[in-house]
Amino acid sequence: MTKRKIVVALGGNAILSDDASANAQQEALKKTARHLAAFIKNGDELIISHGNGPQVGNLLLQQEAGNSLKNPAMPLDTCVAMTQGSIGYWLQKALDEVLIEEGIQKEAIALVTQVVVSPDDPAFKEPTKPIGPFLTKEEADAETALSGSVFKEDAGRGYRKVVPSPKPISIKEHQVIRTLVESGVIVVAAGGGGISVVEEAGQLRGVEAVIDKDFASEKLAELIDADLLLILTAVDHVAIHFNQPDEKKLGHVTVSEIEGYMEAGEFAKGSMLPKIEAAKAFVEFKPEAKAIITSLENICQLIEEEAGTVLTMQ
Amino acid sequence: MTKRKIVVALGGNAILSDDASANAQQEALKKTARHLAAFIKNGDELIISHGNGPQVGNLLLQQEAGNSLKNPAMPLDTCVAMTQGSIGYWLQKALDEVLIEEGIQKEAIALVTQVVVSPDDPAFKEPTKPIGPFLTKEEADAETALSGSVFKEDAGRGYRKVVPSPKPISIKEHQVIRTLVESGVIVVAAGGGGISVVEEAGQLRGVEAVIDKDFASEKLAELIDADLLLILTAVDHVAIHFNQPDEKKLGHVTVSEIEGYMEAGEFAKGSMLPKIEAAKAFVEFKPEAKAIITSLENICQLIEEEAGTVLTMQ
Repeated sequence: MTKRKIVVALGGNAILSDDASANAQQEALKKTARHLAAFIKNGDELIISHGNGPQVGNLLLQQEAGNSLKNPAMPLDTCVAMTQGSIGYWLQKALDEVLIEEGIQKEAIALVTQVVVSPDDPAFKEPTKPIGPFLTKEEADAETALSGSVFKEDAGRGYRKVVPSPKPISIKEHQVIRTLVESGVIVVAAGGGGISVVEEAGQLRGVEAVIDKDFASEKLAELIDADLLLILTAVDHVAIHFNQPDEKKLGHVTVSEIEGYMEAGEFAKGSMLPKIEAAKAFVEFKPEAKAIITSLENICQLIEEEAGTVLTMQ
Repeated sequence: MTKRKIVVALGGNAILSDDASANAQQEALKKTARHLAAFIKNGDELIISHGNGPQVGNLLLQQEAGNSLKNPAMPLDTCVAMTQGSIGYWLQKALDEVLIEEGIQKEAIALVTQVVVSPDDPAFKEPTKPIGPFLTKEEADAETALSGSVFKEDAGRGYRKVVPSPKPISIKEHQVIRTLVESGVIVVAAGGGGISVVEEAGQLRGVEAVIDKDFASEKLAELIDADLLLILTAVDHVAIHFNQPDEKKLGHVTVSEIEGYMEAGEFAKGSMLPKIEAAKAFVEFKPEAKAIITSLENICQLIEEEAGTVLTMQ
């Protein structure tokens, strides 16, 4: 198949299933890198993004457990940067090893990536993403008085801080990413949806927010002029009538068809829906491009033919 | 002055004095970035490395405090990667802001960097660098039985794990760094001396070791063919007869002169000595190059003339 510029958005299961140790996560990423090798061998240019939900969650708990005046817990933007370092390192090393195994003369690099959001994004008025430890009502109230953080009761398990999930408007490092891709380097970027920053009077300010990694990957695909946005998830295909007797897996689907399914409420909020919204936004931005949603295990087929759920403009 | 390719090794005081909060560290790095702006305006290409001693120490304590079966503490290589993410983010953002202030059309990027060490390095036989929390003798013995880690008694304060400090033999990402420097990008790399990895049968393995950031910076300067290795520290000049009535600050000094001072035991182990060894190794590797040891506050002078302690081959 012809060589393509592909943004691959790795799902959570590409990194962590139930064992959160560094070893287990590195082994999972090694498998992931082996799956991706087929594209690299095909000559495709890969730009890889990844989630960080469980990792940043665990890090926030550890930060809180060790919090003191001398050793203060780091805020969310810095913690996201830390997971770009850790997961970036694991993925970069896994790719390096696969490149050596396959005898491919290419380099892989993980970049610290800041994703710009608007301070006027309506999400800042309504924080929805729970992060960090569970607190008692008294602890949560004290923290709100201190920092203004918003807490919500979480299914009887206590109170958790909620942060906004604004939409990405740009990626600060997109020109560097383009330069590297043009030089043939495999780039790992926008990890965890990127570090959320707002631009104010020429200054950048890290904000307590979580950007959906599929939306960040979509913005990345726009900015580097990708041919394909490949969103990896736990299933081979997007389905309608999901988990019902007449469940139907979607193969090729157009934007207007998917809009019909969206209006019919076919896709779960916070799960398949954001992936579909990201896929749709990308092909609307670049009508000659494609977006594919499928599983890591299914992608080897993508070298020779189409596989998974393929979204196109027409 | 002519444009140069400069590897700048930032000392600890460029990031953290006594306030370990994210805000204070970001403010310190903003000041650091302002100092570095003079070089960027001059057209010099900057490749910036930095230490991570206090940050990785604090992170290890937090990891340990929150350690559980479900949320296991990360090993040292991953923690170093995390500080490359956090400090890299702060420095990248600080540089971005200074570039905007100065109206300079350049990009800054922090890279995850693996530094290759030899499994046969004699340092692995004699771990010397203390890391992580203080333990009781019983806790230390239990940990040694479990993981083989080596602990040493630390000045009556308890037992601390000690890890080896091997010499860097290569930097895995040096070609990517070269590509970026040639494209005019300001690169932050080899943070904390880099993530220590060994190469074994084509595989990379992270090891529990700490690489001196000045040696890592020197190797980086070799590999990217820098013109100048600029090692920043707390003082303007290297001095002989340090803290004595006849203390003498060194201006220009040749390799053979500095060797004489080294033999006379003029420089403190673990403090000025590794900086001098790194500087010396670089000018020996590239005899037409220079190495300078000075303070951040003194470097503005370096644009127009020489300043600090300047080491050359002849």
